[in-house]
Amino acid sequence: MSLSKNQLKVITSLSQKKYRQKHQLFMAEGVKVVNEFLNSPFEVDTLFAIDDFKTSLSEDSIVRISVKELQKISNLKSPNKVLGLFKIPNEKPLHNKGLIIALDAINDPGNLGTIIRLCDWFGVTELICSKDTVDCYNAKVVQASMGSLTRVSIKYLDLESFLAATRISTFIADMNGENVYQAKLPKEAILIMGNEANGVSETIKKLVKNKISIPRFGNTQETESLNVATATAILLSEFKRSF
Amino acid sequence: MSLSKNQLKVITSLSQKKYRQKHQLFMAEGVKVVNEFLNSPFEVDTLFAIDDFKTSLSEDSIVRISVKELQKISNLKSPNKVLGLFKIPNEKPLHNKGLIIALDAINDPGNLGTIIRLCDWFGVTELICSKDTVDCYNAKVVQASMGSLTRVSIKYLDLESFLAATRISTFIADMNGENVYQAKLPKEAILIMGNEANGVSETIKKLVKNKISIPRFGNTQETESLNVATATAILLSEFKRSF
Repeated sequence: MSLSKNQLKVITSLSQKKYRQKHQLFMAEGVKVVNEFLNSPFEVDTLFAIDDFKTSLSEDSIVRISVKELQKISNLKSPNKVLGLFKIPNEKPLHNKGLIIALDAINDPGNLGTIIRLCDWFGVTELICSKDTVDCYNAKVVQASMGSLTRVSIKYLDLESFLAATRISTFIADMNGENVYQAKLPKEAILIMGNEANGVSETIKKLVKNKISIPRFGNTQETESLNVATATAILLSEFKRSF
Repeated sequence: MSLSKNQLKVITSLSQKKYRQKHQLFMAEGVKVVNEFLNSPFEVDTLFAIDDFKTSLSEDSIVRISVKELQKISNLKSPNKVLGLFKIPNEKPLHNKGLIIALDAINDPGNLGTIIRLCDWFGVTELICSKDTVDCYNAKVVQASMGSLTRVSIKYLDLESFLAATRISTFIADMNGENVYQAKLPKEAILIMGNEANGVSETIKKLVKNKISIPRFGNTQETESLNVATATAILLSEFKRSF
């Protein structure tokens, strides 16, 4: 068997969100990441793999392709044996338990991937994204999250309405907020991280009372801000360290 | 004036470390980053800029080029008015004061750039790199560090010999180390972060007694590790939060 024109067309189309939604499929690449999805509740659609890729999966779901064909469909600099198409799962209802991260208009796929991985590490199982946050099934997000996507439940929703309605304590990461090292942080909370360039939107800032910041220790006022993924790392650590 | 063949050749060659060392030059791009270097002790060699780029710098140091020429020499997806060549400064002697970060074989330019930015934020002015750590004048490091390179002094040295000789308390970030939230962290210390895939080398592990780790809060044992830049963010925060 080898790659058909139609398969090539579908795979290529998945770099665009509208086709991921149309086909209800996304792609994951490389032995490690593909195996994490195979060993998760995610359902596989098709694997495109070179002969060298071994798996217990039935060969019915596998299209064996050449190294050259893999290079053609891969987004990686060094393609690694397999590219899998998986079904986009239904969003799960929110449990609203423990610490929840909410993202307001995060644009960069690498940042979203890193934040998903951080949630996984810190035991945050629910990640809420505003509708204008980058799609979590974007190929770069999938690769950057390193399979943590299989363990963190992600929901896209109207963040303003959600925050207006919630009864959980909400916190915004904000340069002008209270020093996080001195703040009292509850076990159950929603921590809101904002867009890379603009932070959290003004409307949401008005909805949320608690604002926390990571103090700057450097002498100069020139370091503009921490990257949103490193700021999330530090704030997650602060929320979790005391429990 | 426009771009000469020889200038094009020099600029292109600077993507390789050996030519950066030969010419003792590196490149920085975009209005914001270039201005940070111009307003720092770094010495400018030449700016290649479109007419739209305004500066108080004498036009003698500026080669005015077309948008098309800028696109040709730029490493950015969206070139931003100016590309500057700056002189690689002499490494400064170490002061060995306060908290020092030491990197063992960090490979990824984005990670090094993020760590430099973190050092700047947390007031760490000295960063030590093993000789096999990626070059801090690599164009991707320069762009990722967002000008923090002008405020953090970086020294490449034989890390093993350095650590064998130092009298400062040394700490290794290690998966099997003591829970960092329970560790007693001194104000003066060297924190060693290891390679993305392999962590800190065995030789260095033998030299250093204190090992600290960021505990995993997630239920599964599957999240392999935190990215080295996010781990550095959390550990820097822990070292600094109490002082």
